[in-house]
Amino acid sequence: MSDIWHMLSEEERLFCDVLERIVKERIAPRAAETDESAAFVHEQLATLAEAGMLGANLPEEHGGSGVSALALLRAVEIVAGGCGSTASALTAHYLATDAILIGGTDTQKAEWLPKAATSHMLGAFALTEPTAGSDPADMRTRAVRSGDGWHLKGNKCFISNGGVADFIVVFAVTDPDARHRGISAFLLPKGTPGFEAGPPERTMGLKGGHVFSLSLDCHLPDTALVGEAGQGFKTAMQVLDNGRVEVAAQCIGMAQAALDAAKDYAKERVIGGEALSDKQGIRWMLADMALELQAARLMALDAARQRSLGHRFSKAAAMAKLKASEVADMVADTALQIHGGYGYTRDFPIERITRDLRIMRIYEGSSEIQRNIIAGHLLAH
Amino acid sequence: MSDIWHMLSEEERLFCDVLERIVKERIAPRAAETDESAAFVHEQLATLAEAGMLGANLPEEHGGSGVSALALLRAVEIVAGGCGSTASALTAHYLATDAILIGGTDTQKAEWLPKAATSHMLGAFALTEPTAGSDPADMRTRAVRSGDGWHLKGNKCFISNGGVADFIVVFAVTDPDARHRGISAFLLPKGTPGFEAGPPERTMGLKGGHVFSLSLDCHLPDTALVGEAGQGFKTAMQVLDNGRVEVAAQCIGMAQAALDAAKDYAKERVIGGEALSDKQGIRWMLADMALELQAARLMALDAARQRSLGHRFSKAAAMAKLKASEVADMVADTALQIHGGYGYTRDFPIERITRDLRIMRIYEGSSEIQRNIIAGHLLAH
Amino acid sequence: MSDIWHMLSEEERLFCDVLERIVKERIAPRAAETDESAAFVHEQLATLAEAGMLGANLPEEHGGSGVSALALLRAVEIVAGGCGSTASALTAHYLATDAILIGGTDTQKAEWLPKAATSHMLGAFALTEPTAGSDPADMRTRAVRSGDGWHLKGNKCFISNGGVADFIVVFAVTDPDARHRGISAFLLPKGTPGFEAGPPERTMGLKGGHVFSLSLDCHLPDTALVGEAGQGFKTAMQVLDNGRVEVAAQCIGMAQAALDAAKDYAKERVIGGEALSDKQGIRWMLADMALELQAARLMALDAARQRSLGHRFSKAAAMAKLKASEVADMVADTALQIHGGYGYTRDFPIERITRDLRIMRIYEGSSEIQRNIIAGHLLAH
Amino acid sequence: MSDIWHMLSEEERLFCDVLERIVKERIAPRAAETDESAAFVHEQLATLAEAGMLGANLPEEHGGSGVSALALLRAVEIVAGGCGSTASALTAHYLATDAILIGGTDTQKAEWLPKAATSHMLGAFALTEPTAGSDPADMRTRAVRSGDGWHLKGNKCFISNGGVADFIVVFAVTDPDARHRGISAFLLPKGTPGFEAGPPERTMGLKGGHVFSLSLDCHLPDTALVGEAGQGFKTAMQVLDNGRVEVAAQCIGMAQAALDAAKDYAKERVIGGEALSDKQGIRWMLADMALELQAARLMALDAARQRSLGHRFSKAAAMAKLKASEVADMVADTALQIHGGYGYTRDFPIERITRDLRIMRIYEGSSEIQRNIIAGHLLAH
Repeated sequence: MSDIWHMLSEEERLFCDVLERIVKERIAPRAAETDESAAFVHEQLATLAEAGMLGANLPEEHGGSGVSALALLRAVEIVAGGCGSTASALTAHYLATDAILIGGTDTQKAEWLPKAATSHMLGAFALTEPTAGSDPADMRTRAVRSGDGWHLKGNKCFISNGGVADFIVVFAVTDPDARHRGISAFLLPKGTPGFEAGPPERTMGLKGGHVFSLSLDCHLPDTALVGEAGQGFKTAMQVLDNGRVEVAAQCIGMAQAALDAAKDYAKERVIGGEALSDKQGIRWMLADMALELQAARLMALDAARQRSLGHRFSKAAAMAKLKASEVADMVADTALQIHGGYGYTRDFPIERITRDLRIMRIYEGSSEIQRNIIAGHLLAH
Repeated sequence: MSDIWHMLSEEERLFCDVLERIVKERIAPRAAETDESAAFVHEQLATLAEAGMLGANLPEEHGGSGVSALALLRAVEIVAGGCGSTASALTAHYLATDAILIGGTDTQKAEWLPKAATSHMLGAFALTEPTAGSDPADMRTRAVRSGDGWHLKGNKCFISNGGVADFIVVFAVTDPDARHRGISAFLLPKGTPGFEAGPPERTMGLKGGHVFSLSLDCHLPDTALVGEAGQGFKTAMQVLDNGRVEVAAQCIGMAQAALDAAKDYAKERVIGGEALSDKQGIRWMLADMALELQAARLMALDAARQRSLGHRFSKAAAMAKLKASEVADMVADTALQIHGGYGYTRDFPIERITRDLRIMRIYEGSSEIQRNIIAGHLLAH
Repeated sequence: MSDIWHMLSEEERLFCDVLERIVKERIAPRAAETDESAAFVHEQLATLAEAGMLGANLPEEHGGSGVSALALLRAVEIVAGGCGSTASALTAHYLATDAILIGGTDTQKAEWLPKAATSHMLGAFALTEPTAGSDPADMRTRAVRSGDGWHLKGNKCFISNGGVADFIVVFAVTDPDARHRGISAFLLPKGTPGFEAGPPERTMGLKGGHVFSLSLDCHLPDTALVGEAGQGFKTAMQVLDNGRVEVAAQCIGMAQAALDAAKDYAKERVIGGEALSDKQGIRWMLADMALELQAARLMALDAARQRSLGHRFSKAAAMAKLKASEVADMVADTALQIHGGYGYTRDFPIERITRDLRIMRIYEGSSEIQRNIIAGHLLAH
Repeated sequence: MSDIWHMLSEEERLFCDVLERIVKERIAPRAAETDESAAFVHEQLATLAEAGMLGANLPEEHGGSGVSALALLRAVEIVAGGCGSTASALTAHYLATDAILIGGTDTQKAEWLPKAATSHMLGAFALTEPTAGSDPADMRTRAVRSGDGWHLKGNKCFISNGGVADFIVVFAVTDPDARHRGISAFLLPKGTPGFEAGPPERTMGLKGGHVFSLSLDCHLPDTALVGEAGQGFKTAMQVLDNGRVEVAAQCIGMAQAALDAAKDYAKERVIGGEALSDKQGIRWMLADMALELQAARLMALDAARQRSLGHRFSKAAAMAKLKASEVADMVADTALQIHGGYGYTRDFPIERITRDLRIMRIYEGSSEIQRNIIAGHLLAH
């Protein structure tokens, strides 16, 4: 944390300080109840909106907070450290506004971004499909010209916020022969006829951050096209680079919470007259947790630094996402182990953190996909 | 499995065949619902009682099924492969009847074992305490002479079946100066005044196999003493050797279910025109799962073989428990990963299996305790 | 070890006892010097011949010792525990005689096996080629009919004993269209014109067990054909199943030596007034070494048991080879680590054991090949 | 690398460029021969002296190159990528001059540093003792007042450059009751009567970078005391912080060489008509190597950045050393595995790199010691 801290501007530190207090006082205390009830984190997002967090990925000209990529990384860590579900819904929202920021027209930016940044108009990002892998050739959702607009038809799955969002950025094939250049993005407002979301998936964790299957059979006006036709894939890839750093930030925030909990528990728990934290085996477990967490954080920082330079950083983003998600599961698993039987109960947060984290190695490109990406970059040179 | 199969007698194979059908038809289909409702597996245990499983650890003379340690291992695997909660409640029951079988008087065996073996009288085994580690010197529950009996006072925690059992074998210090030889076991029937169980712990998994905190302030007659005073620790250690092999069996049964699920999913799931099971990276993941599961199974078999020879097998039991529980978590985690996003939902059993398994590295001696035991044996020679 | 011990016959135990003494007194003391000088282990093999070890893989009717597959496993462990180079040359010899035993005619068995078993006529097994993977279609060495015999032409590489052997079983393509059924084995005696071996490869370890590149441009009589034409691939596969268990045995023997050395060192080495073996972190390292070594041993035993039943055991052999070689490197690496700076010097055997072991994950099918084999078996069902 | 590159000044980049060419042309080509002959790297150090590398850790005012900690990190990487032995002897020299720079008097700095920086006067750093751990209370070498100077008596072990150095910084107890504050450093010039070095240790690798046992029974003048009495431990700890980052740099340089070699080999090696680098399993291995190497490099950069800020950075140095040494062994091991049988021979550099690296997890504080340090820092807060 301190590593980030001194790189932030005074203003950014203040932003993070305020956020940290809000999360501690109003978000974290509700995490267990949110997990139990599996109610969507509407109120937590509203709370974050007060702190400017819903536009933390956007420049000030679009109503955003205008903080740097480093400050954004730190801010997402802070939210995730308090409540994984909230962080997950928040970063899904970022994917949607990032798509408009990166690929949208000036009109679209002016219309949607300030509302999304300030007044809790929630976004979703609908790329994944049931039968698709990472190849755009697998995408089955089609958008065809229809009158003065487009007709979208298809299905999406595992879409965070999909059933509760006020607007969704949906990707569809507009030119099946053009492969990467035949995919386009569309802005689909809530209430569009022909759009249906299933019930929230029943998941292992992140129970307050709902994911949905979506069914689309909708007419959209021409103004719904994000930017130009054929630019969708390029936009999506850039959004995902951002998104992967934000997944890394979530992992690091949750893993830090897990490490802190394990450290505190180990200091307090006395067995046979000796604190757990005085046993060499436990100390080495804690050292490895701290070591790997620091490695993950430095990789996320490196990706954020590259992001702030404004050029593509796909390899660094893939590395940060892969490393942080693998490390976070290891850290949480070891933290639970250190808690012993208590770690398996809901009386301590580590049980929930462990479940919340388990999707991180899967969503926004599984660890296997990230390895493919990294190897591709490595072998290209 | 086949490795065990050919070592079993004709009769034992029949026993396992019948059991396998019962589990498949009547236990496994209820596993998801049990997890959801968190209702105790009373009915599943009744079903298993019909198959003779509640006495599968007992010789025929005490109403048990009289199967070998190898057949018992296989049988517990079968149950756990269908429903982890049921297997956990079942093996907790075995701890109780094992304690009577190993340490009890002939009268106690005659009175309790046939009922426990046949008619679904459920047992529990209460050794663990909130502040205790593995050293008997840490035990705080006291039993003092009182009239013609004993007065027990203390607290136990994480006791499987503790609040629903018909009888509990409770361990208490009868002679604080005698260390290992100052601990005794008592048979506490349900309804004993002064006995109270808390609500079931709210756990990550095994939600149909409840664990409880117990509070004891009870008078027990002299006949409640299991065997002789001072024999409790020795009995407990022998029971735990058995119990650890049964934990290993549970792990193996659940891990086999996870591996089977991953294999089936990988064969069916097509990405980019290629089945997951045709991708080298996924094949190697499956190979490592199969390899390590086989290693765990061979270690459990080795411990069971030693158990059936009738001498102490603490090192083999510790190894089997450690290896099987570590392997099972790895196998389930990889199986979930192979399932991708679907693995994180309740639409597939792997999510539940993963949660059910997580306690296995902790209960009946954590992995760290098992390493202490193994190192102790290793360095003694 | 004890696990094997009680399964052996009285005669086999005696065989192993004698061998153990010979290895301890006459083989192990020369291991360091053999590594230093990189001289081939001619004398050590002669010593083993006295103990009947050169025919330990052969039945008595062919001049072998007639011990069981379990006893053979134990015997190879013993040799490898004393000197890896000797064990490697010995098991390469077994590959050659196994090939004759499995695929040869009665005449060939009668002529070659008794000599190979008793009087130190050394064999080699030449399958691997510079450009070939595991697919027989890659084999480039050709054998074509020529007069009343065959003309062999091609190159082999990494052939243990290849340049010092008295006879070599060479594999060549006799029918390029028949794939698996187009490969045949030939018996090539030392001194055959047109046969040339390069200098021994300069390797990291196993310096007394030389491997060679071979160049073949030889005429062989019809009697050199091992068994029938087209049977070579089938023979090779069966030989490799045996060979993989023997590699596992070598790994286990060397790993046991490494573990014993680490245990002894940890007991003797005192740092800050406390023996290394009293530090929890070191104890857990030792426990994991012992655990995994036992897992490897049980897998090798399982494969040997299946081998002795007389049917194919390719999956068990692949598992034993993969597990034992991975475990042995881990055990040796940890043992070296426990030795600290001393472990990096030639003053302790662990440095040599570590280097000797490193080829085990590569030869006779790398770990990656074994994973392919295991996955193939797993997914076939 | 590129991550460092853009942080360096123009001058530093030039420094590194020149160095890279020198290493490529004159150091790397001799690495295999140096390993074979085990001759000390005198000439390579002389070559490096031309490039200013012998004073790269020193400011210009003392005759050093005055490059930043980041440039030094990169420079040591470059040397280690060409020849591990040379890098090891070089960084041992840095320990000696760092000790004078940190702890010495102005007179000592003026007398020794310019010579050490420019004209190839080689230093050594003698802290480790046969019976000592990391506790200063274990140090047995004593220095007692004797006339107008000091008499040193004791033994040191594993001292890099110890027998070939022109001067040695030796640590000894001057006040046995003062613990940390009772240790002092002395400057011992070559040829001092009563100083004896044993023959170079026969090590697994780094054969051109000799380590020695030293025996001391010497009179030294008062001017030999480095700085003031009782400051030795503090100086040593600061030197070791620097030294650990330099070990990390060595690890990263060698690991990068291993990864590059594996990548090139995988691209060129065709098996069954497909390059190794096209196989998913191999690609994932390469991805993990690249990922972890990048993590190690970022940790080393972070430590170097903290070093350049001028305050203590013990935790970051311990993390960088631990991570880089663990990663480097993994990377080299995997690289060797990708090379298959060829990787086990001296025909490719990976075999030597693997052996050279194995000491990195042991010297200048083993991985276990680093874990102790990290846990200490973690639990102090």
